Amino acid sequence: MKYCGHCGSKGDYHIPEGDDRPRFVCTECQAIHYDNPKMVVGCIPLWQERLLLCRRAIEPRYGKWTIPAGFLEIGETVQDGAKRETFEEAGARVEDLKPFALYNLSFVGQVYFIFLSHLTDGKFHAGHESITVQLFEEHEIPWNEMAFPVIRKVLHQYFKDASKGRFNFHIGDIAPGINLS
Amino acid sequence: MKYCGHCGSKGDYHIPEGDDRPRFVCTECQAIHYDNPKMVVGCIPLWQERLLLCRRAIEPRYGKWTIPAGFLEIGETVQDGAKRETFEEAGARVEDLKPFALYNLSFVGQVYFIFLSHLTDGKFHAGHESITVQLFEEHEIPWNEMAFPVIRKVLHQYFKDASKGRFNFHIGDIAPGINLS
Repeated sequence: MKYCGHCGSKGDYHIPEGDDRPRFVCTECQAIHYDNPKMVVGCIPLWQERLLLCRRAIEPRYGKWTIPAGFLEIGETVQDGAKRETFEEAGARVEDLKPFALYNLSFVGQVYFIFLSHLTDGKFHAGHESITVQLFEEHEIPWNEMAFPVIRKVLHQYFKDASKGRFNFHIGDIAPGINLS
Repeated sequence: MKYCGHCGSKGDYHIPEGDDRPRFVCTECQAIHYDNPKMVVGCIPLWQERLLLCRRAIEPRYGKWTIPAGFLEIGETVQDGAKRETFEEAGARVEDLKPFALYNLSFVGQVYFIFLSHLTDGKFHAGHESITVQLFEEHEIPWNEMAFPVIRKVLHQYFKDASKGRFNFHIGDIAPGINLS
């Protein structure tokens, strides 16, 4: 950020009085502009012992597999955001959302919040950000073709819990360059 | 927002191509500026069957009681953010953080994420945003002097779970003007 969104003047980064970290501060109107982490909300959508993955039609990681997830928008709940992303990317309606995991990606200022969910009617289709969407059993999961480490981690956790027949809420941190394969 | 943070030109709100909601878009450099919800992270700090509350020394709700909580910062995990806020506002070190509740305050673009925690050594003192900090047993809680409905809600949930001897992870929505007293 170089200019103040309120008045259009130049600004710079310094620690405002009473604060303990640098913020972007306008040199004219003195407005302080805060930058905070964003939430990414998504689902593991389940249907008859299988789970729904999307093959990405966009960069980054074009052609790789992921669960439906995206940035939470102003005015929506995390549940509604996860449902919206699931419909947008996988054309699927989901219900019975159960909080499953939070993962910190603090090196990119993101917090992933993932639900378990069930498809309402078993219908799905590729949204405009997906090449295709497909139901997978555990042995069919394309582990080496996952879009992001956080997706691999949440799916590993899902199958670990599933093998015990008990799903808890999990919290974890993803490090830069982590390789879980 | 009126001006582009990248180039300082004027912008306006409209729906960019391929999007489905209005964003602030620069009329000159065409940069799209996204505004997303912020996370507020905090703790219920416990010590010998009592919990620690802070009496606010700042507006809004000066003089009212709250748990230590504040905006998550770039570069930190939700656990570290909750620990930092607890030290800043209550002068207390906490450990054994356990995810306890997520509350959507979608009408103000905030998501609260609250942990249960234990004081490391029983020490605490008022930070500069607190008039005083104090340990309370359940019957001592100043229910009518709570700073925000979300704080009343999370404490009610805590005592409800405590009465059963079992703490689950909770998710809920706070409506504007909700009155839980």
